[in-house]
Amino acid sequence: MDVKERVSLPNYTKDNYPKTTRSAVLNKVFDIEMKDTPLPAMKPTDVLIKVMAVGICGSDVHYYDTGHIGDFVVKKPLILGHESSGIVVATGDEVTTVKRGDRVAIEPGVPCGHCNYCREGKYNLCPNMKFMATPPVDGDLSELIVYPQDFVFPIPDEMPYEIAALNEPFSVGVHVCQKLDVKPGTTAFISGMGAVGLLAILAFRQFGVDRIIVSDSEDLRLETAKKMGADEIIDIRKTDSLEEIMSLTNNEGVDYVMDASGNPAAEREGLRALKRGGKIAYVGVPTTDKIPLDIPFMTDHETQIFGIFRYANTYALGVKILAKHLDVLENLLTNYYSLDETRDALEETRTDKGGSLKVMIYPNEKLRS
Amino acid sequence: MDVKERVSLPNYTKDNYPKTTRSAVLNKVFDIEMKDTPLPAMKPTDVLIKVMAVGICGSDVHYYDTGHIGDFVVKKPLILGHESSGIVVATGDEVTTVKRGDRVAIEPGVPCGHCNYCREGKYNLCPNMKFMATPPVDGDLSELIVYPQDFVFPIPDEMPYEIAALNEPFSVGVHVCQKLDVKPGTTAFISGMGAVGLLAILAFRQFGVDRIIVSDSEDLRLETAKKMGADEIIDIRKTDSLEEIMSLTNNEGVDYVMDASGNPAAEREGLRALKRGGKIAYVGVPTTDKIPLDIPFMTDHETQIFGIFRYANTYALGVKILAKHLDVLENLLTNYYSLDETRDALEETRTDKGGSLKVMIYPNEKLRS
Amino acid sequence: MDVKERVSLPNYTKDNYPKTTRSAVLNKVFDIEMKDTPLPAMKPTDVLIKVMAVGICGSDVHYYDTGHIGDFVVKKPLILGHESSGIVVATGDEVTTVKRGDRVAIEPGVPCGHCNYCREGKYNLCPNMKFMATPPVDGDLSELIVYPQDFVFPIPDEMPYEIAALNEPFSVGVHVCQKLDVKPGTTAFISGMGAVGLLAILAFRQFGVDRIIVSDSEDLRLETAKKMGADEIIDIRKTDSLEEIMSLTNNEGVDYVMDASGNPAAEREGLRALKRGGKIAYVGVPTTDKIPLDIPFMTDHETQIFGIFRYANTYALGVKILAKHLDVLENLLTNYYSLDETRDALEETRTDKGGSLKVMIYPNEKLRS
Amino acid sequence: MDVKERVSLPNYTKDNYPKTTRSAVLNKVFDIEMKDTPLPAMKPTDVLIKVMAVGICGSDVHYYDTGHIGDFVVKKPLILGHESSGIVVATGDEVTTVKRGDRVAIEPGVPCGHCNYCREGKYNLCPNMKFMATPPVDGDLSELIVYPQDFVFPIPDEMPYEIAALNEPFSVGVHVCQKLDVKPGTTAFISGMGAVGLLAILAFRQFGVDRIIVSDSEDLRLETAKKMGADEIIDIRKTDSLEEIMSLTNNEGVDYVMDASGNPAAEREGLRALKRGGKIAYVGVPTTDKIPLDIPFMTDHETQIFGIFRYANTYALGVKILAKHLDVLENLLTNYYSLDETRDALEETRTDKGGSLKVMIYPNEKLRS
Repeated sequence: MDVKERVSLPNYTKDNYPKTTRSAVLNKVFDIEMKDTPLPAMKPTDVLIKVMAVGICGSDVHYYDTGHIGDFVVKKPLILGHESSGIVVATGDEVTTVKRGDRVAIEPGVPCGHCNYCREGKYNLCPNMKFMATPPVDGDLSELIVYPQDFVFPIPDEMPYEIAALNEPFSVGVHVCQKLDVKPGTTAFISGMGAVGLLAILAFRQFGVDRIIVSDSEDLRLETAKKMGADEIIDIRKTDSLEEIMSLTNNEGVDYVMDASGNPAAEREGLRALKRGGKIAYVGVPTTDKIPLDIPFMTDHETQIFGIFRYANTYALGVKILAKHLDVLENLLTNYYSLDETRDALEETRTDKGGSLKVMIYPNEKLRS
Repeated sequence: MDVKERVSLPNYTKDNYPKTTRSAVLNKVFDIEMKDTPLPAMKPTDVLIKVMAVGICGSDVHYYDTGHIGDFVVKKPLILGHESSGIVVATGDEVTTVKRGDRVAIEPGVPCGHCNYCREGKYNLCPNMKFMATPPVDGDLSELIVYPQDFVFPIPDEMPYEIAALNEPFSVGVHVCQKLDVKPGTTAFISGMGAVGLLAILAFRQFGVDRIIVSDSEDLRLETAKKMGADEIIDIRKTDSLEEIMSLTNNEGVDYVMDASGNPAAEREGLRALKRGGKIAYVGVPTTDKIPLDIPFMTDHETQIFGIFRYANTYALGVKILAKHLDVLENLLTNYYSLDETRDALEETRTDKGGSLKVMIYPNEKLRS
Repeated sequence: MDVKERVSLPNYTKDNYPKTTRSAVLNKVFDIEMKDTPLPAMKPTDVLIKVMAVGICGSDVHYYDTGHIGDFVVKKPLILGHESSGIVVATGDEVTTVKRGDRVAIEPGVPCGHCNYCREGKYNLCPNMKFMATPPVDGDLSELIVYPQDFVFPIPDEMPYEIAALNEPFSVGVHVCQKLDVKPGTTAFISGMGAVGLLAILAFRQFGVDRIIVSDSEDLRLETAKKMGADEIIDIRKTDSLEEIMSLTNNEGVDYVMDASGNPAAEREGLRALKRGGKIAYVGVPTTDKIPLDIPFMTDHETQIFGIFRYANTYALGVKILAKHLDVLENLLTNYYSLDETRDALEETRTDKGGSLKVMIYPNEKLRS
Repeated sequence: MDVKERVSLPNYTKDNYPKTTRSAVLNKVFDIEMKDTPLPAMKPTDVLIKVMAVGICGSDVHYYDTGHIGDFVVKKPLILGHESSGIVVATGDEVTTVKRGDRVAIEPGVPCGHCNYCREGKYNLCPNMKFMATPPVDGDLSELIVYPQDFVFPIPDEMPYEIAALNEPFSVGVHVCQKLDVKPGTTAFISGMGAVGLLAILAFRQFGVDRIIVSDSEDLRLETAKKMGADEIIDIRKTDSLEEIMSLTNNEGVDYVMDASGNPAAEREGLRALKRGGKIAYVGVPTTDKIPLDIPFMTDHETQIFGIFRYANTYALGVKILAKHLDVLENLLTNYYSLDETRDALEETRTDKGGSLKVMIYPNEKLRS
């Protein structure tokens, strides 16, 4: 496969490019419309990007079929999409880190850069964060976007655009490993083998984890986990995951748990799968509000629970790790759509019964089908 | 007050000391008996200690009136008491850190020193831990004990034995500050102003915390908290603590919460009192098993919850800090008993209606009354 | 002392303020000229500040009498001054953290906010840093400056402007404590009792250090160190500092060393004053290039050496700490000048023979004399 | 290769085993004698081990040909050898972690387990450490040893004894990665491709380092480094290593440096190869005492220098990592000797001119030749 796909590079400059671009816009619940949306003027530190691949995330589907996630409500038309990559078409005068023709992964959140959280390196907590496809901030299911250079990361020639787009869900696992300060030679358990959980296998491995146990209830996901390198697979339709983990670890439990399922039972049991001094991460997936947690167990085991919100400082690292795992492409991608087919892509994901993993939309040339 | 109390120093040596000592033994629930209990032979690294002061802890009372705490059950007679101090009477041949006549604080848990947890400095998680007054390990409501030198810490001349005994409940707050990696210039909230919570005020202050907010529902405890240096006092009989904290912090929340109440409502609300990226500690107090926690809040705020089990590496530091706060003696001590009055001391604590804080037993000379 | 000095608040707005301001400009070595220098247009996130107090730093003097520090060379006229405070006169439309009339400390370095170092919270290492009075970036020995809101920190009513200006040299000690991860209950040694070393005493104390040993060779500095709270004073004219430290610490050595002297002998000996596992900080003061260090000692003691470059995330914390130490004003300030007397202030500092500590310049109302 | 070599398992018990064992003893410089040396009585937590493989270390040779290393002087006959593995023959009554017949790696240092350093998990700094083949503590160039169970680590069936012995020099690199808190996705430079440096390549890789640059001046070592997975090889006979590193890293420098050469030039240049905020480790190899270091560079780059002394908490992790790299055996081992040939082994190592890497001695069955 020649992954450095030959894609056309429009002849635009920082001063001369279209005032609008074609986008897939969510007008209201279940209503996706193709529209021409405005492109802003480029600042000296901005780049103009031709968007090449956009993965569909559970949150995109959630806005599509319910119109909100927690307190974020779609009150006016919103462009969806935030797992993306593209090619740099033009650069502002002060841009130094990328150049025209560079293929890039796009980090979808742009923090203010100067608040307390930003100054301390925890920019995912920035109260002024502008995160794509989170109302009222538009995503990039668009042919072109204008974006700050510092949140655009060059990718190697041999990396397909789709893998660069996967850097977004991958970032969650990388952030978990960074926050939990995951150490080599340890054992981890990941519950929930959606794209976030599956990609987290690679993150834990890169952080040196010796043994990775995973669980899910769908065949395709469990098979894919095995392909991604999981050491032990637990099918929760057939086995009690806590019992199985204890059996696999000589009743010691694991060092780390990452719950990527959002399932209350998994969240409760994950806690009890930890050895003394162990750490568990809950990533921000839609879930029941209140989970009754076993506090006496927590104190007796001196367990740590980490709430995880998006990620920070993961993109450059993510590109480096994914560069060694280009085979994830065929493992994770199951469906391919053009920009005009955005509604079909969302419906596919929404109504999936276990047959698909990651759905990809191509806002320009359709690279795969 | 001349705190270097003149106490008699018996003329024993490492080879020549009584085979038994007088102890207060819990035979079974509500049954305390004064008995002669055996003293073991001293190893070369052991010291013989005349026990001078023993504080009564909630756990002592729990064994006294229920016979168990969680899985720890009093199946045979047990000597209670683990918050203690004394004077070194004799030392083994290899003892180098203390000498006859030294006044010492006694750390009540002796780990194995060589397992994985011990080697990594997390000896509170040692599975071979021998912790005083936790069945079947005896405590030190005894006139004499034989103890390893490494868990015996010299105290300054001017420090009363009672304060050295308070180093035990103080260690919980010190450990919380160490585990949460408490940073200067921050704001902390401590719920539950028993001895552990009250002493934690000093720990958070020593770790540089700028503002300390506390809560309780008893007048004596709240007044004492003020004397111990709390900046803001919340009387939960009159005020909603979460609302009050938000009002006090300009709706930002606090950096750290330590729940020393074991109250489920406090544990739930404490979590929500945290600012983004904040940390909460649950210390191991008897409590309802399952607490329904607000996971979406936790992930959105990237909160960390720390289960806390006893302490490690706190004793030397605790002595240094308490040495600057000798006035805690009159703030915290409310009742004084001889060894023979152990049953009265336990009853006093058990039936307290808000009039007492820390109850002290003197196994030898009664130093105060 | 009524520290909330009554200073006039000019009636400027974000759109209507002078195009120039009066500044003390270093034309070339030894040539200070009072000039009208341009004020830029305010961005929406900028504030207009009337500068009230500017401390003179060794680096200001170095540019004044040699024209360079390392690779930084004064090639065109440069406004000196970077230890400063002032009052907010006007604010841009997007300013949220301060308002007209607020008294503020001014952090003199503005990083880009988006490079790798900035995103990771190490903004002092930002290659795009604009640091005041470091060629070619102007300082603020000016009546007015335009500055980004995020590097302007409100101070309490009772804090004099001069103390807010001292937050700059204080930040070095705070940063040292943060980088070395200074823990409570420890012992520290600080060599060099200039303003940076003297103020570092307060930083180590706030981080919970139990015992602080300092050294210098001038009476005034040693006396001031005592007033600032140092526990032990070493006069290196009379005593060998390494021998003295060992004697004071029972031959164990100290946990932390901060060399604020830039003296090669102090840097060498400081290393050997550390106990096993200890840490030493070298702050960036002009010094001999190559220091022969005892590497076998370092490996045997598993010592860590930290090079320290300016500071990051210290300003808000510094204001909080200094607010409890308003008495440093009379300890540290020795000379007072108006803006027109800038040359005298620099000469005073340059030719000092031990009679002065911190020299302050008042670009507007002269608050003290 | 069937690595689970069939070795005889003597029929000893904890109570019934020889009072002496055959050992290679260094009487004085250049004088190795085969002797019967006493075996102590087993404590309940001890194991009896038949020693199977012992690697020769530079320190063994140093004692052999000079009689001392720093302050450690061979004053009475000393058994050399501390890089070893064996098979458990008998176990004390309280031994729980290994059993008769287990094949094990032997950690050569036994700390006291209860001093301040031990309690904090830094047991390599324990002042009471008993480290094999460091006067006056004997090593294990012996047929049998009695050893505490906690410093004996089971190895997988497929791991040869020689690799288990290599866990000792490997531990240095693992400890460096732990102390420097090496993070994934980074670049490291290791100077000195002796056994310690070569094995460190595996450690940095396991900690997730993306790119590893190494240097040496001998062909065999550089070729072996390539086989061990180094990404870039610098032959310092032909190239200036600092220039080469800068060229390879786009003039940025590397995140981590480990100097395993003890060469003063390498130690100086390694420091300058670091990017801003980078960390360098000096491991404890015999070297010139004073190295003139570029302090202004260190402060400007906010560099950290780590002195490294042996290791702590590396053995279990080391076994896990080496289990994935069994091919290091043929890369690293070059010479094989029986116990009787110990003097030849030491001479071989001492006079090596670049033809050998790791020399192995078999105190019992000679497994390879």
